[in-house]
Amino acid sequence: MKSIISLSGGMDSGTALLWAKKNSKEVIAVGFQYGSKHNSYEQKCAKELAQYFKVKFLEVDLREVGKHLRSNLLKTGGEIPEGYYESESMKQTVVPGRNIIFISILSGIAASQGFDTVVLGIHSGDHAIYPDCRPEFFYRMRDAVRKGLPEIDLAAPFLHKDKKGVLEYGYSEENFPYHLTRTCYKDQELACGKCGACRERLEAFQLIGRVDPIKYEGREDV
Amino acid sequence: MKSIISLSGGMDSGTALLWAKKNSKEVIAVGFQYGSKHNSYEQKCAKELAQYFKVKFLEVDLREVGKHLRSNLLKTGGEIPEGYYESESMKQTVVPGRNIIFISILSGIAASQGFDTVVLGIHSGDHAIYPDCRPEFFYRMRDAVRKGLPEIDLAAPFLHKDKKGVLEYGYSEENFPYHLTRTCYKDQELACGKCGACRERLEAFQLIGRVDPIKYEGREDV
Repeated sequence: MKSIISLSGGMDSGTALLWAKKNSKEVIAVGFQYGSKHNSYEQKCAKELAQYFKVKFLEVDLREVGKHLRSNLLKTGGEIPEGYYESESMKQTVVPGRNIIFISILSGIAASQGFDTVVLGIHSGDHAIYPDCRPEFFYRMRDAVRKGLPEIDLAAPFLHKDKKGVLEYGYSEENFPYHLTRTCYKDQELACGKCGACRERLEAFQLIGRVDPIKYEGREDV
Repeated sequence: MKSIISLSGGMDSGTALLWAKKNSKEVIAVGFQYGSKHNSYEQKCAKELAQYFKVKFLEVDLREVGKHLRSNLLKTGGEIPEGYYESESMKQTVVPGRNIIFISILSGIAASQGFDTVVLGIHSGDHAIYPDCRPEFFYRMRDAVRKGLPEIDLAAPFLHKDKKGVLEYGYSEENFPYHLTRTCYKDQELACGKCGACRERLEAFQLIGRVDPIKYEGREDV
């Protein structure tokens, strides 16, 4: 298997990179810039993770596409809401079609460069607000890609796990460097601890009985 | 129906624009720049067609994606072969996943801007060399998009027609301005008449007993 992975710098795609490394002869990690508020902090983590795992990192600039999309996650959109990830208000942070777009571009790059598998870090915690992370989407998209680019397959190792399951995989396989990841949606260096993405992450660490090793605004250092 | 269409400047997507205009309350035409050799000539035609049909034209710059793709159609690739469209050598001009990528981005923009239908000019003449223009791909991709972006549907009015059928539609509905379109794959102002794309176009005009109204290198003006 020769894999290409969308690496956001978050804990899910980071852990999926570990999976890809363990299961592939070669891995390329792609960091998409699409105009999100947290993009620069996120890209920094993505690069560090790629370096840590010794894989090639490819930056793909999609800001020209991002400027036609509407979402509060983007620099062109409104405020990032606080609250729970599954809550109605978090739907404002959905970037329409983001995952469909990422999969398509990764598939085209993979086919161009002799790679055969597109790996995604999507998991069941994403399902509530992102239709393009749900299994019923994933399997159909995989079918479409298999027809449109017969040399390419898709893999989503955590599709039926939740965020807790992702962490369990990361810690069972090796001591995954979660201190290098970033999940917060806000445009600030320290994670806020209050947006849906932060809350979901903190909860997952709590559920496995560990302390999240990154720094949070207003939290005592651990 | 509010439609968004990929408008390359060629006769197929141009005719699909006519179909979209006749069947929609509103249409946006998108011209993708992805680093193809014929891009500047093509974009000029796409803009003129959009103007002719009085629809909004949106340029989306994908050159940052295109530089990671491999094809002789691209500025980064080798020579464009001469010969027939269906021939083995024309496969060198396939841009891996181009159509998957276009559909995904159009779907994301449509969902962001309150549009509901992505219209494509693909037809059976494309099927031989482009897997991502075939019906078995199209229906699966439509299923995937319907799940991933439930507000968006795909339409391909010429999916089961050939290029002759596309022309017949254009001339039966109104005297379509084919003089504004461009099909040639080569990096030159006048169409070459020899690449697969030119040959397929000329043949379609011949089959309906009309003369192609654009200028060709080495052909007497018509």
